[in-house]
Amino acid sequence: MNYTINNLPERTQKPRDKGITMVMDKGLSLRQVEDFLEVSGSYTDIVKLGWATSYVTPNLDQKIKLYQDAGIPVYFGGTLFEAMIIRGQFDDYRRVLDKYKLEHAEVSDGSITIEHAEKCAYISKLSQQVTVISEVGSKDVQKIFAPYKWIQLMKAEIEAGSWKVIAEARESGNVGIYRDSGEVRQGLVDEILTQIPEGTIIWEAPQKAQQVWFIQLIGANVNIGNIAPADVIPLETLRLGIRSDTFDHFLGL
Amino acid sequence: MNYTINNLPERTQKPRDKGITMVMDKGLSLRQVEDFLEVSGSYTDIVKLGWATSYVTPNLDQKIKLYQDAGIPVYFGGTLFEAMIIRGQFDDYRRVLDKYKLEHAEVSDGSITIEHAEKCAYISKLSQQVTVISEVGSKDVQKIFAPYKWIQLMKAEIEAGSWKVIAEARESGNVGIYRDSGEVRQGLVDEILTQIPEGTIIWEAPQKAQQVWFIQLIGANVNIGNIAPADVIPLETLRLGIRSDTFDHFLGL
Amino acid sequence: MNYTINNLPERTQKPRDKGITMVMDKGLSLRQVEDFLEVSGSYTDIVKLGWATSYVTPNLDQKIKLYQDAGIPVYFGGTLFEAMIIRGQFDDYRRVLDKYKLEHAEVSDGSITIEHAEKCAYISKLSQQVTVISEVGSKDVQKIFAPYKWIQLMKAEIEAGSWKVIAEARESGNVGIYRDSGEVRQGLVDEILTQIPEGTIIWEAPQKAQQVWFIQLIGANVNIGNIAPADVIPLETLRLGIRSDTFDHFLGL
Repeated sequence: MNYTINNLPERTQKPRDKGITMVMDKGLSLRQVEDFLEVSGSYTDIVKLGWATSYVTPNLDQKIKLYQDAGIPVYFGGTLFEAMIIRGQFDDYRRVLDKYKLEHAEVSDGSITIEHAEKCAYISKLSQQVTVISEVGSKDVQKIFAPYKWIQLMKAEIEAGSWKVIAEARESGNVGIYRDSGEVRQGLVDEILTQIPEGTIIWEAPQKAQQVWFIQLIGANVNIGNIAPADVIPLETLRLGIRSDTFDHFLGL
Repeated sequence: MNYTINNLPERTQKPRDKGITMVMDKGLSLRQVEDFLEVSGSYTDIVKLGWATSYVTPNLDQKIKLYQDAGIPVYFGGTLFEAMIIRGQFDDYRRVLDKYKLEHAEVSDGSITIEHAEKCAYISKLSQQVTVISEVGSKDVQKIFAPYKWIQLMKAEIEAGSWKVIAEARESGNVGIYRDSGEVRQGLVDEILTQIPEGTIIWEAPQKAQQVWFIQLIGANVNIGNIAPADVIPLETLRLGIRSDTFDHFLGL
Repeated sequence: MNYTINNLPERTQKPRDKGITMVMDKGLSLRQVEDFLEVSGSYTDIVKLGWATSYVTPNLDQKIKLYQDAGIPVYFGGTLFEAMIIRGQFDDYRRVLDKYKLEHAEVSDGSITIEHAEKCAYISKLSQQVTVISEVGSKDVQKIFAPYKWIQLMKAEIEAGSWKVIAEARESGNVGIYRDSGEVRQGLVDEILTQIPEGTIIWEAPQKAQQVWFIQLIGANVNIGNIAPADVIPLETLRLGIRSDTFDHFLGL
């Protein structure tokens, strides 16, 4: 750090298993990736190329290499997995992962409907090739699961081989674990945490109020995802209690 | 594209007459323009320098040249035209277009009140110098036209020489063809489409939900405008049905 | 300017004492700072490194130097001052200012509770070292001061040595002089202006509607703060009456 502020919460260091920041890149240029890495590289643990943006992004191989050379793994958003599964292209999908030397992949069913056993089979198969992150929750605002269902799905996916499970929120932060308004479904989160170890979950939390809520509940080293590139520095200050929103929370230290 | 996804809707290729993406630049630096072109150049058909930002933007000539060298025409937002018309500077305005070697110009009356015959006369005169894009709809949330009026204005402007007519929404997407809330005036759009060929219209649709609505109504190759530079890649995925919001719409292919 | 538009309001020139634009940088890279300076350097009077982002921003010294070499002073957001005060690190804070050769500092109490006399003592002490900008208003949406209280605090801080007083709004623009919704507390602003010279106040106004409101009330050369880097060019067009929102306001010239 640039100077000393006493009594700040301790942050985990890279490679982090807890306190992960997952960033969503939805179309940065190579130079913008370099700019991002300069500022936020040390605070970023993993980058998702949002949904299927990788399909239309130029210079994809160079872009992935920039991140990987900086020690930051890259993976494709789950919607790409789903777009290829529903077209019967699972083997093609596996080849795409190999082509780009990806070591992580997301398995999700936010836009398609498949049996959960089938989803878990994909997790199981892919986990022999890469580290799997699986996502629970629909992108459809109408589809709301009861808490016991979230827990059941998460447990099964971890057993099937997922490294982490992601609690869905989309880029906008208004589905899954949030209400339409972006407000956290607190009871749902509390109940999930009675059964699933919090370090195993990455909470998608694109909005500041959502990040604050999870930091206050779980602490500086909560796993947070779907962070916009320009929001990593602001998030880091929230984690440390040096922005107004979490200022008081860490003062007892 | 970087890999193969089967059964995606076909996109028109450049130079596009349909499926146009019009981007609004409200003050990018030269390097930011280069970054934009690297990522989104092949998906962008025309760039508007928003309202009168060209008046205060440094390096304007170099910036315009960057776009033009990439084969993307540039034009000044209609508010500049209006600011000069209301000051009796039409001839100055024509000289500015020449000075910057622009081949497109916008004629609008979103902030001024002039007779429609006068507006059409400007379209007619300017169309001898450049390709004219004219805009229908007021920037004033209070001024709401009936559907027959939109149709009448659009028809007259196309007859006067407009290449395309733009349906006003502003950068924010909450006037003209949208309600205050950003919601589409569906009845208005439906009625316009009974009389005006859809390929002749560019729908300003800065918000994602608006883009989704028009893609679902008209298809992958609808003309869409007022797109922020960073939103071109996301829009392209919506057009192709590889983002959640339009995922189902194109599955029948 | 790039061409001539007649009868625009006159803008003050650098170094400005009125008509100041204060920009909030919350984590730009060095190259992004260069891009910003290219486009908006001549319209930007002072840059705030938002809250305590300076603590976690890499290349801080080079970044500050880029701004300073362009003739734009830099200061740390008030939350950093508060984070160090509440930890008993005032002397450390003064050394940090020296280390980075800063010539401006902010004194605020938006996140901590201290006696106003104590706040004024800090203003007084720091004003022997640097130019002090002090901020009035809480970041807590619950804490609402009556107008007479705002006036009393502002007066005392100016007497204690503040160069300008800032009317709090946060990055989001929904506290202090604004309601939750972002709407201006008009009565409050009017009453403040009966007692405090408007040139002494910098109004935080991150939202466009807020900028428009202050430009219409006070004119092209109102002091406005918490402007996002990409919004400086749009703000400049609002000041000049060449964007729709203030188009009519300056037509009487």
